[in-house]
Amino acid sequence: MDKVILLPDSFKGTMSSVDICGIMSAQILKYYPNCEVVSIPVADGGEGSVDCFLRALGGKKTELQVSGPLFEDMTCFYGLLGDGTTAIIEMSACAGLPLIEHRKDPLGATTYGVGQLIVDAAKRGAKKIIVGLGGSATNDGGCGAAAAAGVRFLDAKGKAFTPTGGTLHKIENIDDSRKCPLLKEVEICAMCDIDNPMFGPTGAATVFGPQKGATPEMVRVIDRGLTHLSSVIHSDLGIGVGEVPGAGAAGAMGAGMLAFFGAKLQMGIETVLDAVGFDEIAADADMVLTGEGKIDSQSLRGKVVCGVAHRAKRHNVPVIAVVGDIGDNTEPLFHEGLTAVFSTNRVAVDFELARSRARKDMKDTIDNLMRFCKRMGL
Amino acid sequence: MDKVILLPDSFKGTMSSVDICGIMSAQILKYYPNCEVVSIPVADGGEGSVDCFLRALGGKKTELQVSGPLFEDMTCFYGLLGDGTTAIIEMSACAGLPLIEHRKDPLGATTYGVGQLIVDAAKRGAKKIIVGLGGSATNDGGCGAAAAAGVRFLDAKGKAFTPTGGTLHKIENIDDSRKCPLLKEVEICAMCDIDNPMFGPTGAATVFGPQKGATPEMVRVIDRGLTHLSSVIHSDLGIGVGEVPGAGAAGAMGAGMLAFFGAKLQMGIETVLDAVGFDEIAADADMVLTGEGKIDSQSLRGKVVCGVAHRAKRHNVPVIAVVGDIGDNTEPLFHEGLTAVFSTNRVAVDFELARSRARKDMKDTIDNLMRFCKRMGL
Repeated sequence: MDKVILLPDSFKGTMSSVDICGIMSAQILKYYPNCEVVSIPVADGGEGSVDCFLRALGGKKTELQVSGPLFEDMTCFYGLLGDGTTAIIEMSACAGLPLIEHRKDPLGATTYGVGQLIVDAAKRGAKKIIVGLGGSATNDGGCGAAAAAGVRFLDAKGKAFTPTGGTLHKIENIDDSRKCPLLKEVEICAMCDIDNPMFGPTGAATVFGPQKGATPEMVRVIDRGLTHLSSVIHSDLGIGVGEVPGAGAAGAMGAGMLAFFGAKLQMGIETVLDAVGFDEIAADADMVLTGEGKIDSQSLRGKVVCGVAHRAKRHNVPVIAVVGDIGDNTEPLFHEGLTAVFSTNRVAVDFELARSRARKDMKDTIDNLMRFCKRMGL
Repeated sequence: MDKVILLPDSFKGTMSSVDICGIMSAQILKYYPNCEVVSIPVADGGEGSVDCFLRALGGKKTELQVSGPLFEDMTCFYGLLGDGTTAIIEMSACAGLPLIEHRKDPLGATTYGVGQLIVDAAKRGAKKIIVGLGGSATNDGGCGAAAAAGVRFLDAKGKAFTPTGGTLHKIENIDDSRKCPLLKEVEICAMCDIDNPMFGPTGAATVFGPQKGATPEMVRVIDRGLTHLSSVIHSDLGIGVGEVPGAGAAGAMGAGMLAFFGAKLQMGIETVLDAVGFDEIAADADMVLTGEGKIDSQSLRGKVVCGVAHRAKRHNVPVIAVVGDIGDNTEPLFHEGLTAVFSTNRVAVDFELARSRARKDMKDTIDNLMRFCKRMGL
């Protein structure tokens, strides 16, 4: 084997994708010291996504002062890739739940800082900005971010304000005529692995509000506010976002990205594959190693293994998944292009025990697989 | 792949080696329909060993009336292989614990029937007789079997009797001059996977007596009896068997096989490999698939995977083990010649749950491995 591409998802609660790339890479090089190992830890849009992209593609972090989730000043960061024209932002870095774990404010939290990061990246010359949606503390439909980018939200008196989850219903008009003009030149892509619409029984407030601290009454307020926002977006900007799958991601940040930033919503793994130029690097690869904590056929959408397999199939590259648990029906994944799947479970123990062995089991599983490949003359 | 040899041990309490061969074979043929799959379910000398040999090598069962473990008449069997000159006997078939589960008699049980089977096989022309030691209810040091073959055990009054665990101490002399002469022409091999000596703290009585129903006092009686038998064997037959590893197998049947039948004691897997002509069939094989319930480095001796790997190494054939649990240190096995080891554990669950999924997990694991091999062009 001359070239292997590593594209593992994290094993949630056990190993980061960066960890896994490190383990896989070391074992491959043990048997194939001259192999070109391309490590691409897969970002999911949440915390750590910037690091993943920087690991995979090189680049550096830029720090700046922005508004935190409660409009407080904070030092935040985003990534500028080595190409100088692509920026990576993880919204959780300035609008994330961990930042205000004990001060949750579902009606008052804002994505304002995310907009500041986006504008800053554009000012520094980014032509493509990837925004990871995930882990947010907010329910503002992306209005905060839009306000930071110059979009004006006007109340009944024509006064501009920065809406949050609790004040969305006050928006009478939206004026995007003063939006930062640089953004017209920028392609924005929002990473989003969920399907939820903006509002309603499966919308942002109902499904994700409670984990952000929303009481049932707050959920109703936010859901009505997002419904209202959807109407104003439709009437003033001429865009229908309410029913778009993923519009409900991150407190309806998905809807805001669509409406205010002209972003496309994309599965995380698709974003990663595009960003790293997978189609190009896969062309001469002998094997792709991917993986995730559990593989099954139920949630094909957005799952890393499925996305990798599907894409690799075009290039006729074998895709091997190394996973924690293997669900009962993996047949659909094989149809998607998956070659084979190996579990890291080496002894019959329950998850709590398995988790404590995870790193060694991953190492030994890859070691064994490479030993096999080497011996079989691959 | 044009030729694959299957040599799995049973997964104790879960799947027989015949079961496993069936599962493996079906999955291999699914991907390699023209592959020659040589199924050799591995016998361990215990119950089912005759069936394993007949499956692997062809032949038929012969039935006859013999003495059961409590000297009662019973219908028993042994196998005559297709070559007409090799017989397979499992001693548990007429001296096994399951035959007298509720009538355990560690002082009175006999191996007499085993001797009858051996003599019958010799009379039918067997030139090689394989005797599986294992699962026995007896502690007679093989004296019963020897008596059935014409060896005379004489008490203080010079009267011949058939010693059992409780009467070994009465043996004053052993006279093998009237032993069935046919046996001189027969090579006898006893399959035995344990190391225990005939008597003493790690001997047959102390270690295995209790599971055969022996009280501490009975253990002492038997242990003294076996010590005495060893002395008489030494003085009358000129053979030292007491300390031979394996002499303590099956109530010291190991010692009796050595002393009275000129047998060699051999690891089960070695016996199987010899009987099937492994060296010949491995010469053009692409892969050997073996396996066992748990693989580890602690008990290399006698374990199937280790034996198979060691032998296959001579022929430079890759050996893949598919096992239940993989122990912590498999490195010594790789040195023995093992190529790689895959676990059938596909989800993190404890053994009780894993066992209930065992057949499907084995099927899916082999399916996946073959899918991988096929795709990689093997």
